[in-house]
Amino acid sequence: MTHSFPSQAVIREVGLRDGLQSIRTILPTASKLAWIRGAHAAGLRELEVGSFVPARLLPQLADTAELVAFARTLPGMFTSVLVPNLRGAQDALACGADLMIVPLSASHAHSLANLRKTPDEVVADVARIRAARDASGAKTLIEGGVGTAFGCTLQGHVDADEVLRLMQALLDAGADRVSLADTVGYADPAMVRELFARAIAIAGERFWCGHFHDTRGLGLANAYAALEAGVTRFDACLAGIGGCPHAPGASGNVATEDLAYLLGSMGIDTGIDIGRLLALREDVAGWLRDETLHGTLWRAGLPKTFAAPRANAAATA
Amino acid sequence: MTHSFPSQAVIREVGLRDGLQSIRTILPTASKLAWIRGAHAAGLRELEVGSFVPARLLPQLADTAELVAFARTLPGMFTSVLVPNLRGAQDALACGADLMIVPLSASHAHSLANLRKTPDEVVADVARIRAARDASGAKTLIEGGVGTAFGCTLQGHVDADEVLRLMQALLDAGADRVSLADTVGYADPAMVRELFARAIAIAGERFWCGHFHDTRGLGLANAYAALEAGVTRFDACLAGIGGCPHAPGASGNVATEDLAYLLGSMGIDTGIDIGRLLALREDVAGWLRDETLHGTLWRAGLPKTFAAPRANAAATA
Repeated sequence: MTHSFPSQAVIREVGLRDGLQSIRTILPTASKLAWIRGAHAAGLRELEVGSFVPARLLPQLADTAELVAFARTLPGMFTSVLVPNLRGAQDALACGADLMIVPLSASHAHSLANLRKTPDEVVADVARIRAARDASGAKTLIEGGVGTAFGCTLQGHVDADEVLRLMQALLDAGADRVSLADTVGYADPAMVRELFARAIAIAGERFWCGHFHDTRGLGLANAYAALEAGVTRFDACLAGIGGCPHAPGASGNVATEDLAYLLGSMGIDTGIDIGRLLALREDVAGWLRDETLHGTLWRAGLPKTFAAPRANAAATA
Repeated sequence: MTHSFPSQAVIREVGLRDGLQSIRTILPTASKLAWIRGAHAAGLRELEVGSFVPARLLPQLADTAELVAFARTLPGMFTSVLVPNLRGAQDALACGADLMIVPLSASHAHSLANLRKTPDEVVADVARIRAARDASGAKTLIEGGVGTAFGCTLQGHVDADEVLRLMQALLDAGADRVSLADTVGYADPAMVRELFARAIAIAGERFWCGHFHDTRGLGLANAYAALEAGVTRFDACLAGIGGCPHAPGASGNVATEDLAYLLGSMGIDTGIDIGRLLALREDVAGWLRDETLHGTLWRAGLPKTFAAPRANAAATA
């Protein structure tokens, strides 16, 4: 019954991309810069700050290059962007992002609806992006993110073998990292543990990140199950914003502050100062007054008994 | 990495007691009867319907005897009540409840604030209640419920050894069943797995129930961790109402509908028809218009791919 958990884990804050692209409010660049600054001050060291897509499609994210430029000035910050194609990847390379995420949807129906490409066409894109990256001499890593890995609102069932085939194809095409996402909140902890264990067995050190939505309340239980399977890096959004436009009624991504508390309470060091994170959440709530926010920790605050893992480590050393 | 989960689990709906005692609205008896009828129709077979405390203290629960009488008429229903002392236990015996829960708080500070007794005085009460039960010839089971098992907002840290000492003392005093509760939402999955595994090793078949609050968002992750530790019976409240009056800002109990989904998605049969449960949640939301409700599944509904475990079993048999 005993189980060992990692001593450290990383939360990648994706609110500025996955969160903001799904809501109506267009956040001014100044607020986004304040968000990035606040995230850094709270100890977050990985951010997805935006997406290189045409501004007419996602005007919310038109300032991505400026955000990358700012994030690069912050000590120790590792900056990710989403790129849907080679055109976007060229922008990511030009601005010096540390990592670019290429989204692939394992559900063919979702892939066609959302990306207007089949999953295997996305794999071919990744090969082109890899060639462009290598030709440019840039150090920008390529992450292949396999979405709808547990099912999809359009197609329903998505076969686990197909998910892993596509993940392997991304690696073969030149992705440096691969990730799995429960895009529409269909996963449960048993599914998560099984699929992530298989994925890690295949990708090893190149397995990067677990991305969970809290659409049906299981977001943190799924993150915990992924942790058991060996995942040590998680996407999350402050105040649980975001979600998938093809997932009606979705409650959004796992809330960064709740996930940071889960990990911190278990003694897993994320480097995050949860008090500062909750203060940043208040700022975000002020900027997004017209949006429905999520998450739970902010209501009650930290337990009286909570001690940050680093402080614990020092105390018991 | 493989793990076996039980094929069946039980959810005890405690909204009529733990839920209603913590909110302002006084629900009319007719609505409570409709709630009990709806819960039975949705497949729930264990309910905590009220508490035998003086009506001047908890006027919300003054109709407990009438609710027990009604619940006893429903085929297969197992009816629990809370009793804080021998006086309440005599009422529970008189009305023929199937089980009476005697709450004990492992936090001395919480015990004095909430029950005006020390934990060991509660153990002595249980011995008296056991003697009265045995003398009466009634079949009513006695459950000793150890609360604040993971810490407390007043005292802070609660020692796990003290929790287990009190649980053993309850068994020695004649409790037929024992349970553990995270009354204020301080638990995390690692704590849960360790403490519940130790508790089950001590109490064996007499270990009854895990009771989790979602105060800081970890309710379902904790329930999942308890399931891993061998727990197969859980308390929950429809719409996540309830919580502890000494836990300011608490989000309440784990939501029955979300927990039923977690278990059902994992293929664990609870006998619950989640569609009917969500319909009952709508009724409850109508009755409790002025209260803040919780839970997540109701927003998005069941996944397209969801199949109830019994249907699954039939399909794959």
